[in-house]
Amino acid sequence: MAWAGSDSQPHCKLSGPSEQAGKSLELDFSVAAVLPAGGSGERMGTAIPKQFCRLFQRPLISLTLEAFERVHWIKEIVVVVSQQNFEFMNSVIGQFGHSRTTVVVGGLTRHQSIFNGLKAFVENQPHQSWLMKPEVVIIHDAVRPFVEEDILYRVATAAKEHGAAGAIRPLVSTVVATNPEGYLDHSLERAKYRASEMPQAFTFDVIYKAYEQCTDYDFEHGTECLHLALQYCGVSAKLLDGPPDLWKVTYKRDLYAAESIVKENLSKSACIITAAQEEPVQLGTLLQEVLQRMMKVDLVKYSSSKESHCIQAISSGLYYNFIYINVHLNNTEALSCGIQKDDFAITKQLAKDAFGKNILIYNLLINYTQSMDKAQESVKEGALIIETLIKQRSPVLTGQLLVV
Amino acid sequence: MAWAGSDSQPHCKLSGPSEQAGKSLELDFSVAAVLPAGGSGERMGTAIPKQFCRLFQRPLISLTLEAFERVHWIKEIVVVVSQQNFEFMNSVIGQFGHSRTTVVVGGLTRHQSIFNGLKAFVENQPHQSWLMKPEVVIIHDAVRPFVEEDILYRVATAAKEHGAAGAIRPLVSTVVATNPEGYLDHSLERAKYRASEMPQAFTFDVIYKAYEQCTDYDFEHGTECLHLALQYCGVSAKLLDGPPDLWKVTYKRDLYAAESIVKENLSKSACIITAAQEEPVQLGTLLQEVLQRMMKVDLVKYSSSKESHCIQAISSGLYYNFIYINVHLNNTEALSCGIQKDDFAITKQLAKDAFGKNILIYNLLINYTQSMDKAQESVKEGALIIETLIKQRSPVLTGQLLVV
Repeated sequence: MAWAGSDSQPHCKLSGPSEQAGKSLELDFSVAAVLPAGGSGERMGTAIPKQFCRLFQRPLISLTLEAFERVHWIKEIVVVVSQQNFEFMNSVIGQFGHSRTTVVVGGLTRHQSIFNGLKAFVENQPHQSWLMKPEVVIIHDAVRPFVEEDILYRVATAAKEHGAAGAIRPLVSTVVATNPEGYLDHSLERAKYRASEMPQAFTFDVIYKAYEQCTDYDFEHGTECLHLALQYCGVSAKLLDGPPDLWKVTYKRDLYAAESIVKENLSKSACIITAAQEEPVQLGTLLQEVLQRMMKVDLVKYSSSKESHCIQAISSGLYYNFIYINVHLNNTEALSCGIQKDDFAITKQLAKDAFGKNILIYNLLINYTQSMDKAQESVKEGALIIETLIKQRSPVLTGQLLVV
Repeated sequence: MAWAGSDSQPHCKLSGPSEQAGKSLELDFSVAAVLPAGGSGERMGTAIPKQFCRLFQRPLISLTLEAFERVHWIKEIVVVVSQQNFEFMNSVIGQFGHSRTTVVVGGLTRHQSIFNGLKAFVENQPHQSWLMKPEVVIIHDAVRPFVEEDILYRVATAAKEHGAAGAIRPLVSTVVATNPEGYLDHSLERAKYRASEMPQAFTFDVIYKAYEQCTDYDFEHGTECLHLALQYCGVSAKLLDGPPDLWKVTYKRDLYAAESIVKENLSKSACIITAAQEEPVQLGTLLQEVLQRMMKVDLVKYSSSKESHCIQAISSGLYYNFIYINVHLNNTEALSCGIQKDDFAITKQLAKDAFGKNILIYNLLINYTQSMDKAQESVKEGALIIETLIKQRSPVLTGQLLVV
């Protein structure tokens, strides 16, 4: 039996199928988004700004863009980057097919960058097309990739009603004020305060007017957009409880966490493909039963006539992992089970070629020429290995022959 | 060649060799620690309280205890757990050899639990021995496992001098005050505030006196110890900048991050063990050269006379990963290289037995009966697999035969 833990597309949607694929939210006003991505990532301790750090060969910002592009009622997305990353960001847009995204050059500070992003909707900037001014604009950090449609919908509708809205979370740590000598001045009562997170949304005119009135001090030291809307437009933002996944990738450990979340999302479902003959189907069904305890598993049988059915499953985008069952019968006692060096080399080459497309291939050999009891045990063990390979997505083991 | 990515001891020190192993800090006053661990972990979304969630078969709290036990000047450690976890916590103490730790039953709230922990130093509580009252007590969360000696030393000495001290970190998010209707009241200027983290330290009498004066309201809603020391003893804590690794494991993503940090710590060094003959040494040296680009690698040669040298390396606790080189020469063309089913089964059984001791074993077969150029390429590929196996520590693949 051979199996491939593969992605259906050259660049899989790393954030996994949306939980809300079923829902279809509609809005009767126009919405666009601005994503400031000019940060240098000094807290990450890496040379690469965190928004460009790669998860499975894909920059973090591309995951965030994908999360926005899944939301059909967000018509335009503007990413604001520093001058030196402008070309690179455009290449990311091209490589990962972010068709609704426009790249804009930012300023020296976060607020200047957001303002530059907003200007893309009202002025004809060099290097970019003129975009239609939306009624509501969502502002979100490039380094918060796990944003879902629900919270985007809630901030957008609240902004339309109240002029401004933002996601908040309970404080994890107590907040303290220090005196100039470095001693505790006072602790804030945790219950009365919240962490202000992203996304935030504003009616376009409110946030644009606020930025127009900003002082140089605001641009340099200003805390956040909600505060500017309050200070310059008298708009008190509606605050909405957001989900925990909104957190900002700030430190290296956050990148580890993001990677694990992506892996988890990718390993929620798999598709077993088998020939229509009795033995492969039997093995496939057995494997499906075991794997189903860990993830959603569908079984697709192929024959010459059903091949298109199979191709359909692969290109549906519903699965990121495929298990292809191929039964070899033999009676040899040696482990190799008739696999000669050449066969092994072919699989390795196949895996090497596929890797460029973010597809990982492994060979799992299950000893099936034995009693049903033993076969079931082997399949169980095989299922555990399959689950691990799907979860770990380790490119180094691609092409390996694994034996249970 | 066979290799084992193994731990030297039944239960490896998951936090890795201390970065500060070289330093030997001394204090001229006595220090103990209290670790409240009574939380229910509701934010984690798991049934198990987060302090008992397992990383590599070991509860998180055991990692935190180990971090404290590495610091020789902390003489006693008191862990405070709920009544229902008392037995379990004691079994963890026994299983992982936490010899300087005493378990105490806590109260209904965090503050009551800390107070109970402090009482262990002044009263003869049921179920525990009377502990010597220290001059300074460090209070730390069970769910902040990556605490280093440096910050413990700094809070302890600052507490001795000022009566109280605590670690702080810059705020990641802006903090906002909400009005009762859920709108923004005001944003705090981020630069003026800090997140109050752990560890904190107090002269014992200051914190004990503060708790003695606490009201029921304080016990139930009180924000944190620093505040109580200020309110009831007029002691304004010295605040010290802490490292980013002090963060609190709060959400599931934090557990992912902790796991990745432990994996990274464990994969910083390895030890290659080879026979003293020409070929294994040659292969071992080649492998060392390649692996050294990714981690610190030492080479130990064994012969009958040097066996003790080898055992010394294994039991030193300096390495968590061993690569054992075993050269088989053969000329067969089949992949199995003469490994028959029985041999494979023996390795699998060996791996199964070792797994209970948190030791992972893999077989990596490098084709070495070829030109030097090709051998080097094979070793390079093998080194990548070794690195991955060391980093991923996947128990499911233990016992596998891998071929390059």
